Amino acid sequence: MTLMTDHIVSAFDADLKELGDKLAEMGGLCEKLVAESVGALLKRDSPLARRVIEWDRSIDRLQHEIEERAILTIAKRAPVAIDLREVVAALRIANDLERIGDLAKNIAKRVIALDGQFQPPKLAHGVEHISDLTLGQLKEVLDAYTQRDEARAMDVWRRDGEIDSLYTSLFRELLTYMMEDPRNIGFCAHLLFCAKNVERIGDHATNIAETIYYLVNGEPLLDDRPKSDTTSSTKIEYQG
Amino acid sequence: MTLMTDHIVSAFDADLKELGDKLAEMGGLCEKLVAESVGALLKRDSPLARRVIEWDRSIDRLQHEIEERAILTIAKRAPVAIDLREVVAALRIANDLERIGDLAKNIAKRVIALDGQFQPPKLAHGVEHISDLTLGQLKEVLDAYTQRDEARAMDVWRRDGEIDSLYTSLFRELLTYMMEDPRNIGFCAHLLFCAKNVERIGDHATNIAETIYYLVNGEPLLDDRPKSDTTSSTKIEYQG
Repeated sequence: MTLMTDHIVSAFDADLKELGDKLAEMGGLCEKLVAESVGALLKRDSPLARRVIEWDRSIDRLQHEIEERAILTIAKRAPVAIDLREVVAALRIANDLERIGDLAKNIAKRVIALDGQFQPPKLAHGVEHISDLTLGQLKEVLDAYTQRDEARAMDVWRRDGEIDSLYTSLFRELLTYMMEDPRNIGFCAHLLFCAKNVERIGDHATNIAETIYYLVNGEPLLDDRPKSDTTSSTKIEYQG
Repeated sequence: MTLMTDHIVSAFDADLKELGDKLAEMGGLCEKLVAESVGALLKRDSPLARRVIEWDRSIDRLQHEIEERAILTIAKRAPVAIDLREVVAALRIANDLERIGDLAKNIAKRVIALDGQFQPPKLAHGVEHISDLTLGQLKEVLDAYTQRDEARAMDVWRRDGEIDSLYTSLFRELLTYMMEDPRNIGFCAHLLFCAKNVERIGDHATNIAETIYYLVNGEPLLDDRPKSDTTSSTKIEYQG
């Protein structure tokens, strides 16, 4: 075990602060990407979608920096107990945020694919509702992390079921539009994937909540997740 | 810096061997899950799909064990250079394998959703072709990792474009089936997601190839990936 002298402790604190600052920057960028990618979808704004794709590179860069800094901190300071959990939590949360950035980027790519395509009115608004909810969850879990507030994190964890229910309804609704009018199929297929991406962003917010639980309590959350994407067990029969 | 005495070096080697053994087990399980989930889809075998979902828990458990072991190894041994890269590579590859397990599980869940539903003949066979190719890539990259064979890993990396092209064709084909007959829509929507899951398994094989490059060369691969899922920029217009 490393002897934690004052010198080493304050060096460790400085490492931790750097990790925290980078994570805060990454979290802010992720919130922006999720909001702007869905905004680009609703407004059919391809230039904005291209900027989202560009911004995602900063998220990837931050994830690499956090991974590198976390590994070096563990190697140099050999932290234990809560100190070790702080560093491991930073590693895990950076992973989830990087995935969230990717998912937002995927939505942005579809906005570009849809550019100029036949646009059935109002179909994208179901996606707006689910992404408002998801963005709220993401903000909330990042605040819970900043404050090391386990109760707030658990609220996020429990609410993920709402996103999943909403996604299931949206999946059914989009399939119904496809069946009503085959001209909707191309557009709705892309929307299905956008909605799925938003739903998965919610899953990553839930992962972050689990990491906060582990950070605060020193043990993993063993309960089964309240969520499951029920569309993978949703049977849609053609009624036409 | 830790002084690498013989005692510590051999303890490090033992840690590394344990990580390698667990990763090999995890890789084998992932290959099995990918093969069996697609097998379950082709044969519409729900009991097999349920076993796939169960097996995925072992993959999650192994990923946690590898993460824990890797972090402790870094903290206790403070490895540097190639030794550190070995441990970081194990961490990263375990992450990708865990994601691959999840994607296979998602395919299995859809098999259960499709149970008893109207089944258009032969529609699933396009998924068979892309998953054969993807499974080949996964086996190949895991062999490249075992042998620390960067050239072989780079072959896998370059070939990912084939999977993406195949996925793009399949996406178009499935949308065409949907437009031809609305009774195909429910089934094809699930197949679209299955195909996307397979394509993403290919992405994770590519990530593993990049990790092998970093492990062998000591620096990240900076080239842009040869791939992009072009369906997100695929315009499908209704021709009917």
